[in-house]
Amino acid sequence: MRVAAPTRLEDEMAMMARAVDRQFDLLLAAPDDQRARLYEAMRHAGIGGGKRMRPLLVKASCDLFNVSEESAARAGLAVECIHVYSLVHDDLPAMDNDDIRRGKPTVHRAYDEATAILAGDCLHDLAYAILVDERTHPDPFARCELVKALALASGPAGMAGGQMMDLVAETSSFDLATITRLQQLKTGALIGFCVEAGAIMARVKEEGRHSLRGYARDLGLAFQIADDLLDVEGSAEITGKAVGKDAAAGKGTFVSLMGVERARDQARMLVEQAKEHLSGFGTQADLLRDIADFAILRSH
Amino acid sequence: MRVAAPTRLEDEMAMMARAVDRQFDLLLAAPDDQRARLYEAMRHAGIGGGKRMRPLLVKASCDLFNVSEESAARAGLAVECIHVYSLVHDDLPAMDNDDIRRGKPTVHRAYDEATAILAGDCLHDLAYAILVDERTHPDPFARCELVKALALASGPAGMAGGQMMDLVAETSSFDLATITRLQQLKTGALIGFCVEAGAIMARVKEEGRHSLRGYARDLGLAFQIADDLLDVEGSAEITGKAVGKDAAAGKGTFVSLMGVERARDQARMLVEQAKEHLSGFGTQADLLRDIADFAILRSH
Repeated sequence: MRVAAPTRLEDEMAMMARAVDRQFDLLLAAPDDQRARLYEAMRHAGIGGGKRMRPLLVKASCDLFNVSEESAARAGLAVECIHVYSLVHDDLPAMDNDDIRRGKPTVHRAYDEATAILAGDCLHDLAYAILVDERTHPDPFARCELVKALALASGPAGMAGGQMMDLVAETSSFDLATITRLQQLKTGALIGFCVEAGAIMARVKEEGRHSLRGYARDLGLAFQIADDLLDVEGSAEITGKAVGKDAAAGKGTFVSLMGVERARDQARMLVEQAKEHLSGFGTQADLLRDIADFAILRSH
Repeated sequence: MRVAAPTRLEDEMAMMARAVDRQFDLLLAAPDDQRARLYEAMRHAGIGGGKRMRPLLVKASCDLFNVSEESAARAGLAVECIHVYSLVHDDLPAMDNDDIRRGKPTVHRAYDEATAILAGDCLHDLAYAILVDERTHPDPFARCELVKALALASGPAGMAGGQMMDLVAETSSFDLATITRLQQLKTGALIGFCVEAGAIMARVKEEGRHSLRGYARDLGLAFQIADDLLDVEGSAEITGKAVGKDAAAGKGTFVSLMGVERARDQARMLVEQAKEHLSGFGTQADLLRDIADFAILRSH
């Protein structure tokens, strides 16, 4: 049975969605020259749709450490730039070859492949440009730490490395350990960045981030299992993207290896575990707790 | 008549080529898992070949301000990562569809398109990861300034914006002013970063960088005109990439609009102008002067 997300979280999500759209709208005003198409493609990719779960996680992480709203918003936008660029590139014909995303044509369908590649590349640069700007954090050391952590989470030791494994998975059969590793890289690394962003900006030492890392690891896997369940059980209408693709491709997923029931139990357990990592925090961690609950409640 | 590059510059270029290859070799050791192919593709793109003109410009800029060798080498490697990632993406079938680059098969020909897209994305992240590392510069503010300048030079207001204009040029006819603007974005912005990198790391104020910017602007255009001349007069054997493509595509270039003789004169004039911008510097600017001379002497 699916239940609605807690009202408090729904409000936060709706506010964040508006804030992210507004920020992209301001940043991506198209110039009146031959680059207009590039900016329009970036706008198409960035504005409208998406759960904006990553910026919300950054905000939730900043709530824990009283990091300013502007810092949270800008770091959240940066990680959304990375997420969106990765969707644009992953949707390309040479990669996952998807035609719809967030209920709209993918960028290469709405524009063309070359423009989609460039729009992704530009969103990629934009992420780092946002992070190093003084408005993100007054302390340049903290800004450098953000860039360092995001580059690690995005590159071959993170998201892009996971996407490479995912491409290999199309022609190999992976066991559960390998799929877990794949997902920890492909989606977990960026979620880890989001959850640590507040600690980085509050200059919390590495030793003080163990519980956050534990939360992020469990949350990331719970989200992925929920995604796999939606790929089996959801509809394109609800998810805003193609479904049933993994099964059609014969690709191993948590659900194909564990079965629907065990996968659902595993996701529930991971959410409880994620919340346990937050036991040292008071009500300031409520948004992180709500997001964990939402991981297995969401219908899209 | 083509003459050889000055011996001093040849030595510097050969040393830089070895240093860049060595650094890529160390940074891109392939892991023993399903991501090995991704690292191999990055190595294919990064190691071997290329004039390494951008890292050499960074070194020359660092020479002016007594910036340490390690800082120069790391900032140079970062900009080479951006340059190489852009070549990998620009060579893709959806973009320029090139089969050879630096005398080898392009990455998507040696591997596949998906791997090439990801390898480019990873080199893109690597550039920023290198810049924010403490080893690049002890002062986090300087590291942030490097990231800011590189992101500006790479994104829609720089290289990627120029590439977008280049794609539009295939179906429009551009005048000389528009082609100049295109090239200033596509190749000039990154060259500008290289030439300013030393000043950024030496914390030279903006007002003190005018002459460097002038040098970079003139040098960038001289290089581009030389490139256009090579596309008309060179051979694939010498350049290590396909030639005659611009003419075949009916694309406007400096040479098609000005003619060979006027283009050659213009390049010579730009080189003299570039060197005049350096008149305030002593022998510490000799490497920058040699590079300017090389712009119109090079045979590849």
